[in-house]
Amino acid sequence: MRQRPSLSALAGPLAAALVADAVPLRLGIDVLAGATIVDGGIARPGGLEAGCRIAELCMGGLGRVTLQAGIQPDLWPFQVVVHSTDPVLACLGSQYAGWSLSHKEEGGSFFALGSGPGRAMAGKETLFDELGYADSGGHAVLVLESDAVPPAPLVERIAADCGVGTDRLTLVLTPTASLAGTVQIVARVLEVAMHKVHALGFPLDHVVDGIGAAPLPPPGKGFVEAMGRTNDAILFGGTVQLFVTGPEDAAADLAQRLPSTESRDYGRPFAEVFAAVNKDFYAIDPLLFAPARVVVTALDSGRSFHGGRLAPDMLDRSFGGTGRAGPGK
Amino acid sequence: MRQRPSLSALAGPLAAALVADAVPLRLGIDVLAGATIVDGGIARPGGLEAGCRIAELCMGGLGRVTLQAGIQPDLWPFQVVVHSTDPVLACLGSQYAGWSLSHKEEGGSFFALGSGPGRAMAGKETLFDELGYADSGGHAVLVLESDAVPPAPLVERIAADCGVGTDRLTLVLTPTASLAGTVQIVARVLEVAMHKVHALGFPLDHVVDGIGAAPLPPPGKGFVEAMGRTNDAILFGGTVQLFVTGPEDAAADLAQRLPSTESRDYGRPFAEVFAAVNKDFYAIDPLLFAPARVVVTALDSGRSFHGGRLAPDMLDRSFGGTGRAGPGK
Amino acid sequence: MRQRPSLSALAGPLAAALVADAVPLRLGIDVLAGATIVDGGIARPGGLEAGCRIAELCMGGLGRVTLQAGIQPDLWPFQVVVHSTDPVLACLGSQYAGWSLSHKEEGGSFFALGSGPGRAMAGKETLFDELGYADSGGHAVLVLESDAVPPAPLVERIAADCGVGTDRLTLVLTPTASLAGTVQIVARVLEVAMHKVHALGFPLDHVVDGIGAAPLPPPGKGFVEAMGRTNDAILFGGTVQLFVTGPEDAAADLAQRLPSTESRDYGRPFAEVFAAVNKDFYAIDPLLFAPARVVVTALDSGRSFHGGRLAPDMLDRSFGGTGRAGPGK
Repeated sequence: MRQRPSLSALAGPLAAALVADAVPLRLGIDVLAGATIVDGGIARPGGLEAGCRIAELCMGGLGRVTLQAGIQPDLWPFQVVVHSTDPVLACLGSQYAGWSLSHKEEGGSFFALGSGPGRAMAGKETLFDELGYADSGGHAVLVLESDAVPPAPLVERIAADCGVGTDRLTLVLTPTASLAGTVQIVARVLEVAMHKVHALGFPLDHVVDGIGAAPLPPPGKGFVEAMGRTNDAILFGGTVQLFVTGPEDAAADLAQRLPSTESRDYGRPFAEVFAAVNKDFYAIDPLLFAPARVVVTALDSGRSFHGGRLAPDMLDRSFGGTGRAGPGK
Repeated sequence: MRQRPSLSALAGPLAAALVADAVPLRLGIDVLAGATIVDGGIARPGGLEAGCRIAELCMGGLGRVTLQAGIQPDLWPFQVVVHSTDPVLACLGSQYAGWSLSHKEEGGSFFALGSGPGRAMAGKETLFDELGYADSGGHAVLVLESDAVPPAPLVERIAADCGVGTDRLTLVLTPTASLAGTVQIVARVLEVAMHKVHALGFPLDHVVDGIGAAPLPPPGKGFVEAMGRTNDAILFGGTVQLFVTGPEDAAADLAQRLPSTESRDYGRPFAEVFAAVNKDFYAIDPLLFAPARVVVTALDSGRSFHGGRLAPDMLDRSFGGTGRAGPGK
Repeated sequence: MRQRPSLSALAGPLAAALVADAVPLRLGIDVLAGATIVDGGIARPGGLEAGCRIAELCMGGLGRVTLQAGIQPDLWPFQVVVHSTDPVLACLGSQYAGWSLSHKEEGGSFFALGSGPGRAMAGKETLFDELGYADSGGHAVLVLESDAVPPAPLVERIAADCGVGTDRLTLVLTPTASLAGTVQIVARVLEVAMHKVHALGFPLDHVVDGIGAAPLPPPGKGFVEAMGRTNDAILFGGTVQLFVTGPEDAAADLAQRLPSTESRDYGRPFAEVFAAVNKDFYAIDPLLFAPARVVVTALDSGRSFHGGRLAPDMLDRSFGGTGRAGPGK
């Protein structure tokens, strides 16, 4: 059988480098219950570059995330581009925010979705059975899209679930409305596609490679607006190309069904969708979460299938722009 | 006299890193006759990122190859961008597939063109006389655009020609139709320009620098289609800017003659051209192999000359796309 | 109080790596009065990649500078993209050419503006009081936009001002008309914006992050033409997005006033402006030095404000192009 990398073994040095570069990256480093807590935008500013580094860490060292000048240079001139040495493992085995982390105690509760290479050490999700992947040893790293520090008992439980002492656990906290959070969420454009590929029942082992891009949205004010914009960057501005094996008609079908445009909830900024369901996240069509536009290349036949479309006008509605600039305007 | 780098000394650590990262990059590593054989897409999938790494290795550590979101974002949204610290040496002294490697034995024969820093150790090509460059010592690395493993006697002969033991030889195999192969071939957009510069008789020591880009084609089905698309990515979608010294009129002349558009065989997808000459590669106008569009900047006068043009419609014909996507379509 | 990085501590390893890679990067390395002198384009060619490396060094290790395929792919197909972990410190504390270095002796005089992390060791500029930043220890690195080697007494004075022996001083020389110089100057697109932000009285501690891009101009013939084009790349082709805290109306005001378009001297290539004031640099409106187009995102309200516009026709006038290429032309 093919050998697969240990995500945690690859992530350990990246986490150590993030901590070593915390001062120039303007990240905070704290120790809580023995674990390393990286503040990516709560009390410390963090920034775009920190977001790229965190996104690469979140992909278990299997991804490259860069900021590039944009394909839609008018109002939103920069974009996040992501690819990976192994999209199934990097995106679904690591980057996907699939581990539900919650803790209730007197006076309050904490909830966050954990992403990153530590997930495969804990193996709490049935997804890992489908991936046929488990990891152990090494250093446990999780990224939490959160603006609060998790309580100590939860930190201890996470370490225990990962099978390591808290001294070998790093939690990176990136609020949705922070700059680092914005980058690391939008860098999920490929992961969002991979997740929908899975939801549509397309065989994951037929996905050989992929690459994605989405515009860099301005961080929203507060959680809902920020979440809306990072989603909209992907839903209305995201492009993903996948390279798949298997029958050509399955690739064609995937290209048609994969884009966000095919969802019943497509058509308005995400924050409006969210409000319309009274903020009941689970009432939203899960198939909405997808890139705006896809190319699916069927490697066995050499043909490529295109689906969806970019919607720059929706980005303008979502991103809170005022006034216009650019040539010819 | 100016000092020039040892390509093999620069390539050695890159080859070692490629082997060390073989599992995450999904490359195969075998030992044959004492040499290291890297499978970049035969039995193992490899991928786009592996292609970037192999392309940089193939330039002897003097090049940078990145995947970027594209300038023609409609149907083919991603591109390969390449530049170098020293285009003449990186492209002609290393990346050019100039070393003919063949072996006949009972039951079959093997043929491939060798590229990479090992070429300068063997010095089999007259080109090295013109470049005034020879290399020795270090680690011999060659990239073979091949879907077969070379026979052991050939491996031994290559090592001997390079003046090293087989334990200091690394052969990287990238089939034309593989993802890594696609990237590393399209990353030759600058090399193709440099080669035609040479063929046109423009003095190589007048070329100071260069940078190139070409769309990432979907891998074709089989060798001919795959070869056709990687060529077409360059011939119809490639852009190169060169910075040259010397008389302005020589730069102007180069800009006019350099693009693929100036070839008598320009005008249809490469696979059709290839079929029209009954697959006799040497019947094709060698001046066809060039980027679609060039800018030649004459450093001594400060003026720039433009030649050729992109032909997105030809890319669509070549790349096997089906259906259309993108804004306004 | 927040901890800030030592620019010189970060720059030391980058300077050492630049020297170690001098042969492949085609840089010259000399020793003068005990200091290391890096020739980035006087007697040695240097190049685009050397320019990226020097630009990152000039930002004190806090910046990333890449060459990308362009947003204006017609005549000038490549661009320089820059971002930073900390734009205020990287751009104003390091990259800004704010240290006036001059020496007169019999037979001639030397003048250059020093940029780079060594500035904060010398602390000669009142700007550092405003930044509240000083640096010491480490290795002093300065970049000089110069085509001449500074005289030994000046080298000794620079080292003394930085509080180090000359053996811990590296001076990188990049002529304006060299390829490395072109890249490292255009990589100032974000710094130019930061400097005008400061000149407009906008509080620097309200600038959290930023990212910029500008087309790669062909180097001009001679100092004035070269200076004109690098300026024009920014003034007519530069885009910067800033992320700021504070009142929304201050962000809106900044977006309106920041672009080059708002200067009384906007409207013709910089070399013409320079000639019109009889080459008296200080007679030019200092507010001209700004990117063509800006987006200012007010983080506290989530709204973005756009100002200025790209002027590709002015780039064509400035960049010395001849003939046209590209689709549809």
